[in-house]
Amino acid sequence: MLDALKAALPERVSTASSDLEAHSHDEGYPARTLPLAVVYAQSLDEVQKALAWARDTGTPVVPFGAGTSLEGQLLPPGPALSLDLSRMNRVLEVRPEDFMATVEPGLSREALNASLKGTGLFFPVDPGANASLGGMASTNASGTTTLRYGGMRPNVLALQVVLASGEVLELGRGVRKTSAGYDLKDLFIGAEGTLGIITRLTLKLHPLPAQVHTLRVFFEHLEAAAEAAYTLLGSGLPLARLELLDELSLRSINRYLGRDYPEQPALFVEFHSSTGEALEAESQLAVGLMREAGAVAVAAAKTQEERSAQWEARHQLYWAQVAQHPGCRFMITDTAVPISQMPALVRYAQHLLAELGLSGSILGHVGDGNFHTLVAVDEQGYPQAERYAMGLVEKALELGGTSTGEHGVGLRKKKYLAQEHGPALEWMGRLKQLFDPHGLLNPGKIV
Amino acid sequence: MLDALKAALPERVSTASSDLEAHSHDEGYPARTLPLAVVYAQSLDEVQKALAWARDTGTPVVPFGAGTSLEGQLLPPGPALSLDLSRMNRVLEVRPEDFMATVEPGLSREALNASLKGTGLFFPVDPGANASLGGMASTNASGTTTLRYGGMRPNVLALQVVLASGEVLELGRGVRKTSAGYDLKDLFIGAEGTLGIITRLTLKLHPLPAQVHTLRVFFEHLEAAAEAAYTLLGSGLPLARLELLDELSLRSINRYLGRDYPEQPALFVEFHSSTGEALEAESQLAVGLMREAGAVAVAAAKTQEERSAQWEARHQLYWAQVAQHPGCRFMITDTAVPISQMPALVRYAQHLLAELGLSGSILGHVGDGNFHTLVAVDEQGYPQAERYAMGLVEKALELGGTSTGEHGVGLRKKKYLAQEHGPALEWMGRLKQLFDPHGLLNPGKIV
Repeated sequence: MLDALKAALPERVSTASSDLEAHSHDEGYPARTLPLAVVYAQSLDEVQKALAWARDTGTPVVPFGAGTSLEGQLLPPGPALSLDLSRMNRVLEVRPEDFMATVEPGLSREALNASLKGTGLFFPVDPGANASLGGMASTNASGTTTLRYGGMRPNVLALQVVLASGEVLELGRGVRKTSAGYDLKDLFIGAEGTLGIITRLTLKLHPLPAQVHTLRVFFEHLEAAAEAAYTLLGSGLPLARLELLDELSLRSINRYLGRDYPEQPALFVEFHSSTGEALEAESQLAVGLMREAGAVAVAAAKTQEERSAQWEARHQLYWAQVAQHPGCRFMITDTAVPISQMPALVRYAQHLLAELGLSGSILGHVGDGNFHTLVAVDEQGYPQAERYAMGLVEKALELGGTSTGEHGVGLRKKKYLAQEHGPALEWMGRLKQLFDPHGLLNPGKIV
Repeated sequence: MLDALKAALPERVSTASSDLEAHSHDEGYPARTLPLAVVYAQSLDEVQKALAWARDTGTPVVPFGAGTSLEGQLLPPGPALSLDLSRMNRVLEVRPEDFMATVEPGLSREALNASLKGTGLFFPVDPGANASLGGMASTNASGTTTLRYGGMRPNVLALQVVLASGEVLELGRGVRKTSAGYDLKDLFIGAEGTLGIITRLTLKLHPLPAQVHTLRVFFEHLEAAAEAAYTLLGSGLPLARLELLDELSLRSINRYLGRDYPEQPALFVEFHSSTGEALEAESQLAVGLMREAGAVAVAAAKTQEERSAQWEARHQLYWAQVAQHPGCRFMITDTAVPISQMPALVRYAQHLLAELGLSGSILGHVGDGNFHTLVAVDEQGYPQAERYAMGLVEKALELGGTSTGEHGVGLRKKKYLAQEHGPALEWMGRLKQLFDPHGLLNPGKIV
């Protein structure tokens, strides 16, 4: 059966065990399933050929980007083809005059931003991991800058997708707004490859901020930090990032990265301003507001190096935890709630961790009502961590929230969608049936 | 046949000729078609009853909000029921602590903002007309503040919709971000009532800006103004509005509203800042940039009154034109292009107007690449105005743009969708077939 695939795609198919292993898991879901084979597609035509073979043989196809998903999105559902798009990684066009770039799906966000050096522009969506842009679109990724710039949906203007049938669709247009018909582009964003394979993206770029102001603000209690975050949200300050970190997070950062940040609940805050004077005034306002809200220490990152170091610390937190817990497995939660419910959910999370005898650090995009818990457990402890994650989702849904703010559904969150969406979930199933009637594309995910 | 409707919905059904006439047209499309009857629904249950009758009798249903659409969206396609939602106009819940409000679809944006007085929050999407929020969602409306706050999609967090079958779906959640499954919410936004009837919206609110800075900047030529707009877009200034107006627009404003603005191509610019010092610094930067870019005069609106007067002038432009051209009909174009193509399209528009012997004022959301032409013609001149509108859409599509930036498809733009979307248009038809298999909901619009 694979002979036909190898004949159709010479030098693109691998069944080497190292390749199969590398495509058997993601960075967060505990299970592993080896694919039948890996195809390293290098063009739209090759994606279509892989799909043609999949149709002929009835073999499921799972798209694979950088492998950084967390919920099992790219796990093969039994014998399946892993369609690796990481070699489709070209920047096809940068149009600085349109604040726009067109790229292939395997390009990483860091590579895109490196290629934009000198244009004065950047692509702001930043999930931490150096994910592929196709993968980021497929999970509707967001991150620390979403507060200001939005997640993938508003920053992907157009997509090229290939359906299971091999048909190629162009969705959306390279314009900043359009009301021309049904929004298929946003339907394919967040669909985790279950409706079609993304083969090209047109992205919105933003001017690099002229002035950046970064603060670390420390509080006695996590709730005080969460409450202070509101004050900032209501202030009209040009907030670009507003991240909450608990005591444990700071401790991990200090140990792993050799920092000497106070080991107290903190807000990591960033403003993007246009002039030095504006920055100065906004900085004073922000510090005043934070002190009124109970901040016990405020430190400003004064240089680009210090700013980078601060955000590196935030992004490296996962790896800090990994380093501190050798041999452990990690559970990363991803609930989001209406922002006023964030302190209540954080309180519940702390309570539930204690009740289950778990230790976990809490950090999150407090400006979006979205936080993560990193729970480190040994093999035997994993079911307990799963109990925690489940309890947290149930509480988030009860508070009007969502089972996943930005990591997506994959295999892990599927069981909550009925509660979250009610009858709308059946319609999601009908859409899947419409676009992929034979269930070839990443079956078993989302619906 | 109507007896059953009247029995199901006592005191909600009108066949009075004034009601039928008021529901026979919108504010921009030239045709009129009387509906069979108008139902003034006051609840979800009544919407469902109207739909049940429509299914029983095979009668099409056209939702109607404030009647301010421009492309024929709410014209009855022959004998149809006009489902008027303007009495479903309650603010159901305001949750300032979540920056969120839940409303009925017939509520107008001005009524919503009036009800938010005292909360420090506002709903920013501003299409000019005092449209209903359900109607704004249905056309994916945007407007002068879209540059900063986005249009309807990012500002509608959740929808309740009723399908043709009567089934009620809750789409999206009241959270700032979610990656939980297919994005049905955004599919129904911009669907112009063809997939379902919106019966409730959960909206994202924003803090009122602490400091607002408004400028009128005048240039020798329209293209110079368009070029200057770029400079601002790349500056990182906290732009909230960036509107282009041509000489004719200023002349109409002066005559109709008794202003004494220079009758030259202009940018109307607004920044939202957080502190007085920031505002001052940003103002200086902006004025400097504009002068370097060739501005011949810069006026700052110093008071709230002057600011309101300036934006009133922008919004009243249509009515200014109406007053100046008694007995005329109006064509309003709505193309959007990649922003670097805006000067080329403006140039083409001026050329085409001259070639066709038409007079039209050009004004637009230059920060979004979206502009409108207001063309006043007498009855005999309308076909010529249609030729202009068609030529402009064709040019916009050729430049990589869209046939409609914010007014939607309705009846007028339908003929361009095949060129704009290619094979994706057939999939839009399949979605329509899936959600509304008997074609009861606003048939003939979009697909």
